[in-house]
Formats: sequence, C-alpha cells, structure tokens
Amino acid sequence: WLPSAGAGAAPDPLPSWVAGASKSAIVQFVTTVTDAGSDGFVPPAERIATFDNDGTLWSEQPLYFQGYFALQQIRDMAPDHPEWKEREPYRSVLANDLPALLAHGKAGLMEVLLTAHSGMTADEFVASVARWREKARHPGTGKPFTQMVYQPMLELLDYLRDNDFKVYIVSGGGVDFMRVFAEEVYGVPPEQVVGSTLDATLEMRDGIPTIVKAPKLVLIDDKAGKPVGIYRHIGRRPILAGGNSDGDLQMLEYTTVQRSGADTTPRLGLIVHHTDAEREYAYDRDSHMGRLDKALDVAPERGWLVVDMKRDWKRVYPGEQ
Amino acid sequence: WLPSAGAGAAPDPLPSWVAGASKSAIVQFVTTVTDAGSDGFVPPAERIATFDNDGTLWSEQPLYFQGYFALQQIRDMAPDHPEWKEREPYRSVLANDLPALLAHGKAGLMEVLLTAHSGMTADEFVASVARWREKARHPGTGKPFTQMVYQPMLELLDYLRDNDFKVYIVSGGGVDFMRVFAEEVYGVPPEQVVGSTLDATLEMRDGIPTIVKAPKLVLIDDKAGKPVGIYRHIGRRPILAGGNSDGDLQMLEYTTVQRSGADTTPRLGLIVHHTDAEREYAYDRDSHMGRLDKALDVAPERGWLVVDMKRDWKRVYPGEQ
Ligand SMILES: [Ca+2]
Ligand SMILES: [Ca+2]
Repeated sequence: WLPSAGAGAAPDPLPSWVAGASKSAIVQFVTTVTDAGSDGFVPPAERIATFDNDGTLWSEQPLYFQGYFALQQIRDMAPDHPEWKEREPYRSVLANDLPALLAHGKAGLMEVLLTAHSGMTADEFVASVARWREKARHPGTGKPFTQMVYQPMLELLDYLRDNDFKVYIVSGGGVDFMRVFAEEVYGVPPEQVVGSTLDATLEMRDGIPTIVKAPKLVLIDDKAGKPVGIYRHIGRRPILAGGNSDGDLQMLEYTTVQRSGADTTPRLGLIVHHTDAEREYAYDRDSHMGRLDKALDVAPERGWLVVDMKRDWKRVYPGEQ
Repeated sequence: WLPSAGAGAAPDPLPSWVAGASKSAIVQFVTTVTDAGSDGFVPPAERIATFDNDGTLWSEQPLYFQGYFALQQIRDMAPDHPEWKEREPYRSVLANDLPALLAHGKAGLMEVLLTAHSGMTADEFVASVARWREKARHPGTGKPFTQMVYQPMLELLDYLRDNDFKVYIVSGGGVDFMRVFAEEVYGVPPEQVVGSTLDATLEMRDGIPTIVKAPKLVLIDDKAGKPVGIYRHIGRRPILAGGNSDGDLQMLEYTTVQRSGADTTPRLGLIVHHTDAEREYAYDRDSHMGRLDKALDVAPERGWLVVDMKRDWKRVYPGEQ
C-alpha cells in the first residue's frame, strides 16, 4: 500500500553532488531567481551564466588540453615545413622535448599556438580538431580528452538550462577550438562559446566565400579580458559565473560585485577547487596550470562558493560509480 | 450555419506583406526548412538568420540614424571641451554645418564617431543612447527614430522566431548603440546583436569592476567584415540573410553560395530594395547611404529575393493603414 508515496518528489537534478552546503547553495540560488513570488526573481532573458572551461568543466593537467592539440597540429603540419627541423621552437616540439619548448618562454609558446591555429580555413581547422579529438588520449588516464569532463558540472549546466538560464562558456581557450565539441559535449552551441579569438579574413576561393584564420589575436579571453569578452559577445552582466583560477577573478567580480544600492539581483560566484589528488588532481596556489591564489583569498569576503571537489562531488568523470 | 468554416486556417503571419512572389518565397522557404518530412529540413539549432539593420530593419535616410546620435553626443559633450569651438571637425558639428563636416572626409567622420562612442563607461553610454532615443526626432517625419522600423520586417522576425529560428542583427552600425533598443524594438536580445565594435577595458572604479569604451575599432562589421563578425560571434553559417546594400553582398554570398555538392541545405538571401519615394525613400545605385549596386546586379544569378518595398509591402511603418 501507499504505492504513490514519494511519487510527487522531483528527481534530484544534481545526483553527482554530495548533499551539503555547496549543493544547497546552488539549489537555493536557482530556486530564488526562478521563483516569480521571490524578491530575487530574475526574468529568463537575464539568466545568463558563464563558465570557464579548463579546470572548471574539464581537466587541465598536466597541460591545458588545447596544448596537446597544438603539439599534434605542429607534428601534422611538419611535412610541409622541412625547415622546422632546424628551427626553434618547432624543433623542440618535433623532438617531443617539452622542457626545451618551455624554455622558450611565453613568446615561444605563443608562436606555436598561433602557427597551430592559423593559416588554414575555418573548415580545415574544424577537421583537424575533430581528428585530434578522435585519436588523442590523455597521457595519465588514457581517456579521450572530451571524456575528462566533470559529471557534476554537466549536471549543473543541464539544471541551469532546465531553469531557463542561457549557459555560456567564457574561457581563455581558443573559441574556434572549443566550438568544435562544445555543443555535443556540454550542450553549449557555438554562438554561446566565448574564448580567446584570432582574427579571420574572408577570401573567395574557387568561387566559395571562405573564412581563413589569421595569426593575430583580437581577444585574450583571460583575466580582465573575460569581462571584456562578455561585454563584446553577450552585452549584459551574468548572474552566475563559475571558474577555477585567478584567470576568473575579474569575471567573478564583474558578475557578483554589487554596483549600487539599487542592484539587488541575487548573484552567484562559484570556484571549483581541485582538492582530489586521487580521483583527479590537487593543486591551487603553486600550479602552472590554473593557479588559484588571489581568487581563493578573496572568495570569503566576496561570498563566492568554493566547491571542494573531493568533498562535494560523488564522482568526477561520467560513468564513474 | 457552417460556423466553423475557416476556423482551422492559421492567421496570416505576414499581414503587412502583399500576397505575391516575395511573400510566397519567404513562406515556402520557412515551410520547407521546418517540415521534418522534407529533404530541406533544418534542425532548429541550425536555423540561424542574420539581418542588416540600417535600411533593412529601419530607415537610413537622409543620414544613418546613428549619425544623428553621434552629432547629439558631441553637442552634449561640448561643455567639457571648450577647445572644440576652434577645432575641426568638432567646430562644424557644433555649428550644425553638415556640408563642412562631410568635407573632412572619412577621417573626420571617423574621429567624430570614435569620440562620440568612447571615453565613457558602458553604463554611461547606454544612458546617453537612451536619452537620445527619448528626445530625438527624425527631420523628415518628425517621428522618434525607433518608430521608423519596418512593420513587414518586424513580422518577418516574429515569423522566423515562431518557427524556431535564432534571429541576429549583423550590422555595420555600432553594436553597443543597437543593443540599447534592439530587444525592445526588434525582440533581439543583446547577445544576438553583432555590429561594428570598439575595444573596451575593465577598470576598478570605486571598488566596482567597470567597462570603459576605448577609441579603437576591433571589428568593422561591413562588407567582408560581416562574415567575419558572424564567424566570431555565431560560429556557424546562417541559412537566411537579409540586407539592403552592397555592404551586405559578402554576408549574402557567405550565407547562400553552395560550398559543395553535399551542401544541399535550403538557403535564402533577401534584399530590401527601396523603391517607395512616397511612403519611405527610393534609392539604390547612386545613394550615399545604403548604396545598392553590385548586389542588385548579382541577385538574379545568386537566386536572391529582391523585395520591392513599394510593390511588396502593404505598409512601411507600424501603425500605418
Ligand atoms: Ca580555468
Ligand atoms: Ca544597410
């Protein structure tokens, strides 16, 4: 008897989140902004949420995943560039000598990135990312890189969309790189991906108007560049922003800092803190990838939610028990 | 008797369009791409439509409406710039001497535009556009500028959205200018407005992260810049593009030119041809604003729909009989 007991309860929208303060804060925020009777109600059109990608939606150790793509891309381009065998920083890439590459500093890395991401058509670039995605495996886990996304965050994106949020990725990573898989992997369509951006030109090739990627940055979507990217692409302030490093500090401040006494809209800043050396990685203040230092210091005074991966997540990657 | 006769007929979604070839072509296109049983079916996520603004969604004579805003902005800023009384091109603006201003050529106009659109915070800029919109009147019609939008095009935008299109504005006009009213006037939210773009910086002012507009163009969203803007902001090719001038030629080509034999998606290019000197304006090949020459020549071979304003539209502006 009592066959209908519990039948009225909605299924848990965040099953991979441990019941606790972090999960409660998220559910409380979404409940408030979607409750038409609440003082904190936000109309659907203004429910903009922006998430960093590397270290927030997928892993970023021991190297940003786009870095692996760039190295592969250089190797694939090498047959057309015999001079690279003698020329740095390409020689180091082709010799698989990562320490030697890193010794060339930011300028060397930037040259590799620009070369790997320009000089081809937009369609050719998409094809090269798709090929890499198909074949490449993470050196630590052996998984395809796009399986190293965080199951709890996928649930959060779905939960927000189910509550009429428009979910954006706002990442230091390359916009054209992420757009190849963001819709399939995250449910985020290309037009809702903002990232570091190379210029492009339009050329008529064999009668077909063709976009060609140029080796010139028009947006570095990191640190202060994130609010600038949000302003350029979205044109309104998010009510929720999630990140994992000091590169997200300005985006979280731009999203959450009250602008005046009249600015009473509820706002949520969220930081994914990598605390789980066993299931993923543990790093913060001293990491070369995703350094989290200043943002961790100011989180309490800013009222940001610091998600403790080890404590708050039942599983990290999809398919785990 | 027969009280239900005709009750099953859907109301006409385009009541301000004259029954004829143009209206039929639009309805036929939308019917095809939304019919799941048709070979030309397009999934909703790919139903991207992009429209030029000046001369396509609202009037642009005798001067682009944003030009009137810029002139007013310079007059409003003048008290803080006493030196402008003696300095061109500002002296001409303050003297209301349009011929003298135009004599300074593109460089002079660009200086006026950059000055009018930068140096203030994003919020201050929004307020100045909103003030202008409230007070300014068109010199010919006496109407507020945002009432000089085309009723048939408003119906077309609604019709497309009702059929799960995502409608964008892709205009040579300034993105920050259009975003102030695009949602209210066109139903197009800020994140779906692409336009010519000035750089911006993030500054902490009195503890508040503040976007400040900079006098440096990062996108001229005209001609070849339109497909580049679409690529940057949307990241996929539209299936419908509408414009009215040679500034839209590349956007229409990018949208409609078949890329390969496998590219069988139905695509629609649409040109608003200003043929109605009585109700609006009549101009094309010789106009300083919205010159339509090359695009008119290639329209037949490209299969673009040339909308004849006089013949195809029952009314031009909202509220007309
Ligand atoms: Ca990150
Ligand atoms: Ca135009």
